[in-house]
Amino acid sequence: MTLVASSIIAGQPVTGNAGQVRGINPATGESLDPTFTFVDEAAVDQAAEAAWQAFDIYRSTSPEQRAAFLELIAQYIEADKDRIVERAGLETGLPQGRLTGELGRTTGQLRAFAAELRIGAHQEIRINTAQPDRLPAPSPDLRQRQIPLGPVAVFGASNFPLAFSTAGGDTASALAAGCPVVVKAHNAHPGTAALVGQAVTLAATEAGMPAGVFSQLFGAGSSVGQRLVAHHRIKAVGFTGSRGAGIALMKTAAARPEPIPVYAEMSSINPVVIFPGALSTGAQDLAAGFVSSLTMGSGQFCTNPGLIFVPAKDSGFVDAAGSTLASTDGQTMLTTGICGSYFEGVVRLAETPGITAVSAGKELPGRNAPAPALFLTDTDTFRSVPDLQEEIFGSAALVVQYRDEPDLVFALETLQGQLTATVHAVEEDSSEVQAIMPVLERKVGRILFNGWPTGVEVNDSMVHGGPFPATSDSRTTSVGSLAIYRFQRPVSYQNIPSNLLPEALQDANPWGLPRRVDGSLQS
Amino acid sequence: MTLVASSIIAGQPVTGNAGQVRGINPATGESLDPTFTFVDEAAVDQAAEAAWQAFDIYRSTSPEQRAAFLELIAQYIEADKDRIVERAGLETGLPQGRLTGELGRTTGQLRAFAAELRIGAHQEIRINTAQPDRLPAPSPDLRQRQIPLGPVAVFGASNFPLAFSTAGGDTASALAAGCPVVVKAHNAHPGTAALVGQAVTLAATEAGMPAGVFSQLFGAGSSVGQRLVAHHRIKAVGFTGSRGAGIALMKTAAARPEPIPVYAEMSSINPVVIFPGALSTGAQDLAAGFVSSLTMGSGQFCTNPGLIFVPAKDSGFVDAAGSTLASTDGQTMLTTGICGSYFEGVVRLAETPGITAVSAGKELPGRNAPAPALFLTDTDTFRSVPDLQEEIFGSAALVVQYRDEPDLVFALETLQGQLTATVHAVEEDSSEVQAIMPVLERKVGRILFNGWPTGVEVNDSMVHGGPFPATSDSRTTSVGSLAIYRFQRPVSYQNIPSNLLPEALQDANPWGLPRRVDGSLQS
Repeated sequence: MTLVASSIIAGQPVTGNAGQVRGINPATGESLDPTFTFVDEAAVDQAAEAAWQAFDIYRSTSPEQRAAFLELIAQYIEADKDRIVERAGLETGLPQGRLTGELGRTTGQLRAFAAELRIGAHQEIRINTAQPDRLPAPSPDLRQRQIPLGPVAVFGASNFPLAFSTAGGDTASALAAGCPVVVKAHNAHPGTAALVGQAVTLAATEAGMPAGVFSQLFGAGSSVGQRLVAHHRIKAVGFTGSRGAGIALMKTAAARPEPIPVYAEMSSINPVVIFPGALSTGAQDLAAGFVSSLTMGSGQFCTNPGLIFVPAKDSGFVDAAGSTLASTDGQTMLTTGICGSYFEGVVRLAETPGITAVSAGKELPGRNAPAPALFLTDTDTFRSVPDLQEEIFGSAALVVQYRDEPDLVFALETLQGQLTATVHAVEEDSSEVQAIMPVLERKVGRILFNGWPTGVEVNDSMVHGGPFPATSDSRTTSVGSLAIYRFQRPVSYQNIPSNLLPEALQDANPWGLPRRVDGSLQS
Repeated sequence: MTLVASSIIAGQPVTGNAGQVRGINPATGESLDPTFTFVDEAAVDQAAEAAWQAFDIYRSTSPEQRAAFLELIAQYIEADKDRIVERAGLETGLPQGRLTGELGRTTGQLRAFAAELRIGAHQEIRINTAQPDRLPAPSPDLRQRQIPLGPVAVFGASNFPLAFSTAGGDTASALAAGCPVVVKAHNAHPGTAALVGQAVTLAATEAGMPAGVFSQLFGAGSSVGQRLVAHHRIKAVGFTGSRGAGIALMKTAAARPEPIPVYAEMSSINPVVIFPGALSTGAQDLAAGFVSSLTMGSGQFCTNPGLIFVPAKDSGFVDAAGSTLASTDGQTMLTTGICGSYFEGVVRLAETPGITAVSAGKELPGRNAPAPALFLTDTDTFRSVPDLQEEIFGSAALVVQYRDEPDLVFALETLQGQLTATVHAVEEDSSEVQAIMPVLERKVGRILFNGWPTGVEVNDSMVHGGPFPATSDSRTTSVGSLAIYRFQRPVSYQNIPSNLLPEALQDANPWGLPRRVDGSLQS
């Protein structure tokens, strides 16, 4: 495959004249060939209309057909994996090992949704057979299935050029649900987006899918991205990125003549609570685990641990974390802009009254590789300065020392919605843990014990979501098999003649779906 | 029980000083004792805070405890049923038979959610056991359950004083999910609301539930209702009513610092398509069924059939419907205001160019019982006048004559989102039916054959929902067991020690919940 530096609309390369972008190597500042042109709003309309034209055809494919399509996408990505990983490395500064792992996660997600399609539980089939003799009136035959919402706009994320971008979790789950996808490529990794987009296009052709099932546009977020979300043919939005951009999309979607759901995963500082018992088992190990999680990938993870509650009598955690961090090198961030925002955030934190700088790692000058940074405060300051809850995207964290359990609970209650909360505790901490569990449940999408939040498993039980402002819709997850539910809605069929019933609802159950029939679960 | 003419906040009667309202008998204009006082915004804060205080306690109850609570509510309503039905009849003009049926539906819904709690499928338990030997890295123990969103604001509906009001479907499903409820009572049936509110309060006390689990407020929608939806302790909204009021609530909820989901069931004209084959089997019977569905309850149903597509060569349907309607008496509407809006809607329709008046029934003067009305137009007019899609709440319908299948499909594609679509067809109509099914699926929440949409079964398979503007959230239903899903969200637990796991997620499965364990469904 040659890298074709263009948008793709319904299988066709499209060159625009509304500006341009080139990949930039953030470690060197080098500008990378080729130049990608930006499309205009007319191209958005074209892609959205093509997706709409494809919708009824695509949603009528069988689970097996869609599963095969997703598996083909994975195959075509793997067939080009060396080049994809190399290009992504140049554009993002992320190391090869990380990107190889991310590519595996991306293809793994596609195959996981293929497996989910074959199980079919997400179709939520419910059947109530007619009761002609029921009193006081007979009841009809009623059958319910889930149908896809319609074309979905997916925004590539800067921090996951593969797993949350062109063929990432949002695209995979939307395609699995039966929704055509229009991707707004992230401008920080245009070459990576183009290569993966070509893989998706090849798979769509080979699988015999309608061309409009996938398009990918290069353009400015403020014009192409906004136009896409406002377009009447788009019926849902998947986004991972900053709170500002996410809220802008939410506003646009809510202001449409027909409002649509936005699934925006926006920001989280992922509180970690360390209890005295756990701390007494080894401050040094806890500090090492923490610094490793904090600085991994230059801290550019949605689940980066940015807030640590430790006992005021901390038995050495802050000292140990500080000295570990001091010997940690900065790592190249994704873009100069992101690195600049990190510096601003760190300076703002350092200048906040009541905040003490504990330690900083080593900046690698000229490489967008800023020093990791650790700060310290107390619960009174934390509660009284709401700005301390703003995410600093990168390897910066704030340690908050708490006096006792009520003081901790009081501080946790002030938290905004988060993706995760982590508890470090041993048996003797149990009563304190029980006191904070209800608070954490109300605040987060995932609670984890004696680990670190940066690993996000992709399976049935994962929730990568949480109350606002962590996400725009706490009822969902953007990782794991439950993610498919975001892109479907229930439809009920009453007294439909059997020859007109969709396959999913037929008595013979040709797709072998789990069903709930007259109240009884059949799997 | 004495009828206590007051709001209820966390079990206590509360009198307000922000205005007052009395029930009005719409058939006579008689003002009914007693007078109900309106509370002010401070009372809203009090009720919302009480609900919040109750939340953690209430959500920690077992499914069995919550089921027993719902069943007790049903019992207390039944214990007072004669008075509730009598009072509702006086306040709404609805006949006793209808209200007796609606009371049965209300208690039936409460018991259905109790049954759903005992099955527990809505908890969506998912478990992935740890794989310590997985390569390249071990996987953790991950378990997912659904938890309730938080206190829910429920708005009583004028047209269902029982089944969609104080202890109606929204309240029953929110309580089942584990959410405290604050009801904004509808001012058109204050006495009914008060009696049912007393029943809920007695049940909460007897079941040992925290007092804040239920409150009910009398007040103006523009102040008390809006304040409730804007309150930071309220986490979701259930509403059935007009499009204008629903959209106002959506805007308020979206503009909060923390936006929350609004489940508003707003308006629908419920298209009916009659195919030539079905028509040839008997225009007279179809017309009789149609007029009966149209005029039932004075047309005050969300699923009232307000739009009928018939072949231009109609073989007598319009004539038959017109003459049947001409001999149909008006029935008292819920309020003078609703009756006035009906008159306005009918006049607007009659004055629209391209619309012909077919027939009108008999108005009963002085009783808010306007004449049912039938109008006729063609597809060209229907497509070119968007106002024709505005619901006229009451017994008015528009017949649209279509030329052929493409003309019909073209007209159906212009439809806004609807709760239902109805098809009248026989075997010979199958190919035309197949042509419109994908269109109807995209437009509605329920498709029914050879029946009428006004009967809404309460079971697992019902969808009483649909794309905007029929509702604010097409992913949900406000009737049937799926309604409980509106008020919950997933939380994932990673490597939680077994003694700290919620009952729902424990290996021993003490509540006997259906689960998905390592990909396999266990029921």
